[in-house]
Amino acid sequence: MNLILLFPEDFIDSTRVQLTGRRAEHILRVHRAKVGDMLAVGISGGMIGKGTLLSIEKGSVGMETSLTQKPPAPLPVSLVLALPRPKVLRRVIQTATSMGVKRIYLINAYRVEKSYWRSPFLDGTSIREQLILGLEQACDTIMPEILLRPLFKPFVEDELPGIMIGTVALVAHPAAERECPRNVSENITLAIGPEGGFIQYEIDRLADCGFQAVSMGVRILRVEAVMPSLLSRLA
Amino acid sequence: MNLILLFPEDFIDSTRVQLTGRRAEHILRVHRAKVGDMLAVGISGGMIGKGTLLSIEKGSVGMETSLTQKPPAPLPVSLVLALPRPKVLRRVIQTATSMGVKRIYLINAYRVEKSYWRSPFLDGTSIREQLILGLEQACDTIMPEILLRPLFKPFVEDELPGIMIGTVALVAHPAAERECPRNVSENITLAIGPEGGFIQYEIDRLADCGFQAVSMGVRILRVEAVMPSLLSRLA
Repeated sequence: MNLILLFPEDFIDSTRVQLTGRRAEHILRVHRAKVGDMLAVGISGGMIGKGTLLSIEKGSVGMETSLTQKPPAPLPVSLVLALPRPKVLRRVIQTATSMGVKRIYLINAYRVEKSYWRSPFLDGTSIREQLILGLEQACDTIMPEILLRPLFKPFVEDELPGIMIGTVALVAHPAAERECPRNVSENITLAIGPEGGFIQYEIDRLADCGFQAVSMGVRILRVEAVMPSLLSRLA
Repeated sequence: MNLILLFPEDFIDSTRVQLTGRRAEHILRVHRAKVGDMLAVGISGGMIGKGTLLSIEKGSVGMETSLTQKPPAPLPVSLVLALPRPKVLRRVIQTATSMGVKRIYLINAYRVEKSYWRSPFLDGTSIREQLILGLEQACDTIMPEILLRPLFKPFVEDELPGIMIGTVALVAHPAAERECPRNVSENITLAIGPEGGFIQYEIDRLADCGFQAVSMGVRILRVEAVMPSLLSRLA
């Protein structure tokens, strides 16, 4: 937690917040903060700045906030991600959030196990937890949107063309001949397949849409590795 | 398991192997392979190729191997990594292995919790498991070396200068002004700090050694995200 993320309901007046629970505990146990100490804070969806500790009482922490800076710039990448298995999903969402991705479409694919769509980790509250952890990690405040698209064909045919407008659309595919570009200045739509990859039919449908298949080499990587690798290479 | 990693003791003659346990189970349950099917195989430390399934019997699998290709090229990066917490360590070692890193120094730093050095995951057998998983993921056969260096100062003063010879030495430091370079053609020594970062004293000692502090931007990332990000950006 490199930044304490605040929400409107934390404010007891225009600049003072009162925190309990996880954040208060973190401030007291991990930061070992004392009255007068300053911590990085930010308001969800808004500015970042400093919070000065005013009071500590029974696990509740009072702070005076001064929010004067913009959060870090978002990454100009929309992710289209074949739904990973639940444990991986949590880490991947957290990582993508910390890297500044602001829109993630979780889509179905032939090699996505059906049971993944019934995972409790897809619940709004559970996803929101990971988003908050990712924002706190990266000192960001702008919540990404996570959009579930459990039907591949309608998504690719009806929705994806609109999403791609004005972007370079790339699909990660270890078998592709084209090397993944570096340091792209345009906005990007980046598709990443499931464990085992997209099947040829899916690659073809994405190509019909205008996606270019790109590779980072012969090594096949897990989504946890490939996602940050691609994001940092492209951005 | 995109490649079945074989060891000398699996061979019953010069080209035939007999597998039981985890690998046989994977071949039968995940690949659902039948007699006659061909699978990607490779011998630890050597060539890769194909294995043709000859027999399936009580969870034991016989294969005829033909090993004719070189494994993928290694990544010309030596990692110097502040020891992460045990759960993260396993994933990080697996990821670094799958990305082709062949030498990882796990070092101490001020913000490394002492208890991490007592983790059972640092045991040779446990580390080897992660290395094998990483190689199997990336269709590689060359086992990385993992070197434990629980004393920061002697490592940096006595050993690191030798490790760095002929390499570009970089330390990831979000506060650095210099942007992390891209697509470096030289060999690299890359240092990554613990959760919370290296302290200034450590950054200074690394700088004395000749390390340049580089940043990928203001976002502070977890080691699981920063390591693949840096590797793919540099390589």
